[in-house]
Amino acid sequence: MSTVAPARPKSVEDITAEALGRYSNTQDPRLKEIMLCLTKHLHAFANEVNLTEQEWFRGIQFLTGVGHMCNDSRQEFILLSDTLGLSMVTDLLSNAKPAGATESTVFGPFHRDDPPAKEFGDSIVDHSRGGVVAYISGRVLDMNAKPIAHAALDVWQAGADGLYDSQDTTLGGGMNMRGLFHTDSEGRYLVKTTRPVAYQVPNDGPVGEMLRATNRHPWRPAHTHFMISAPGYQPLTTHLFDSIDQYLTSDVVFGVKDSLIVNFEEHSTHDESAKKFGATAPFVTASYDFVLPPARN
Amino acid sequence: MSTVAPARPKSVEDITAEALGRYSNTQDPRLKEIMLCLTKHLHAFANEVNLTEQEWFRGIQFLTGVGHMCNDSRQEFILLSDTLGLSMVTDLLSNAKPAGATESTVFGPFHRDDPPAKEFGDSIVDHSRGGVVAYISGRVLDMNAKPIAHAALDVWQAGADGLYDSQDTTLGGGMNMRGLFHTDSEGRYLVKTTRPVAYQVPNDGPVGEMLRATNRHPWRPAHTHFMISAPGYQPLTTHLFDSIDQYLTSDVVFGVKDSLIVNFEEHSTHDESAKKFGATAPFVTASYDFVLPPARN
Repeated sequence: MSTVAPARPKSVEDITAEALGRYSNTQDPRLKEIMLCLTKHLHAFANEVNLTEQEWFRGIQFLTGVGHMCNDSRQEFILLSDTLGLSMVTDLLSNAKPAGATESTVFGPFHRDDPPAKEFGDSIVDHSRGGVVAYISGRVLDMNAKPIAHAALDVWQAGADGLYDSQDTTLGGGMNMRGLFHTDSEGRYLVKTTRPVAYQVPNDGPVGEMLRATNRHPWRPAHTHFMISAPGYQPLTTHLFDSIDQYLTSDVVFGVKDSLIVNFEEHSTHDESAKKFGATAPFVTASYDFVLPPARN
Repeated sequence: MSTVAPARPKSVEDITAEALGRYSNTQDPRLKEIMLCLTKHLHAFANEVNLTEQEWFRGIQFLTGVGHMCNDSRQEFILLSDTLGLSMVTDLLSNAKPAGATESTVFGPFHRDDPPAKEFGDSIVDHSRGGVVAYISGRVLDMNAKPIAHAALDVWQAGADGLYDSQDTTLGGGMNMRGLFHTDSEGRYLVKTTRPVAYQVPNDGPVGEMLRATNRHPWRPAHTHFMISAPGYQPLTTHLFDSIDQYLTSDVVFGVKDSLIVNFEEHSTHDESAKKFGATAPFVTASYDFVLPPARN
């Protein structure tokens, strides 16, 4: 036997210490901090559950499958992050707002650049898929409840069939259910749309497999997306959720915040709102004031 | 304003609690345990480093790149696990041995099934790539130092150019530097090979990018792989490392254990070993006894 060193068996703690030590020459302090924390938690996870080689290999296969599912129109790693709650944690860490400001929520994968320009009160329903007509209105305010004129509201939503335009192959890439609005001189906005509906996140891939294996449903509660910006204010990416949705407490991507839930009120043909919007029943209205904090310097 | 609930802002802790609670209906208790622990550590990692959306998105891009690098002959996620030290943690958790038994180390991605059968003392060098001739010998023993006859030793190694046969396009898929040996009636084995050399793990992909960004080198210290099995004993997957290698304390995949380091002794043409092996200088010898614990019931 020509073993050189005394044979103290290596422990998990030894390997973790060695792996952490390997970043001592990393120049970028932020990258170093992230790698150290990631390594610590990755090793602790395996150690705490006493991960077997078979389970580890199943994890390797799962991640490989997630990677192979990603292409120009499908981002399975974002979906994985969303369904594990990581995206919402990151949203909260990046977009924490002062008390009184409107809360943010997940951006999601369905935003598209250059939505069609809309005037006050225009409809975003360019291709009807049925659904109940809805008017969403309100104001964009600063922290002192002062209206912000000409704030931009980028609005997008799934159609009444639960599909975004990019998921609807009949549109040939055309846009629908989205538009760029601006507030008027008194900070008001008005969007005509359809009442949002609950829909399933894509679940024909590895993330869907994970949801089924853990007995989780793939539904998001009904919501309309808003991305709001105005010079001198912090931009806001958020949703408004329908208060009657059955999935509000079990959103598969954890996006619901209490302050973002609104009532969609049902109206008759001859009430005040019908006159105001020139609408005939059935239709619903929701109102919400968005509050933006001043831009960080 | 028709906000339904009072607006207590959501915290990271709220989201983590919500994400953990989502596994309350998971039937498989082991999967449930793994998902809970994974979620806890994933959220804690993001929270502790105060992960920004930009950093999160860089991570999404990195993992997508790792997935896209995986194909039938390249497993970038295993390489990522190896270089983060996770594979060695899992090896230790799955293959912890009683004191006195030979320690295991990483399996690695270069094993191939059905290696050529070799007789005692045969060479595994079917296609020479230069290098110093080496004889590795010893015994396979049980925990009472009793020889195990006819134990199988699956041996594989990189050539003197640092490449495994599967990486050498000139071989057209043919095998080299590998063979299946068996111990004799006294538990002895003898393998003729070349002195192993240090080599770089594949670093033309995202993992290589990670190594460069963190100022880590991509080298593994010189080693020969052994996978040893005998009926009634726990199988062993391990390496023998050359004691003079400069990367012993910085193996990019953390595979080195002190008890697996051996001296390769240099010989002159007229010494005892030269006579024993019928060898002419330069050549080296290393000896190592592998100790297998009894199979688990």
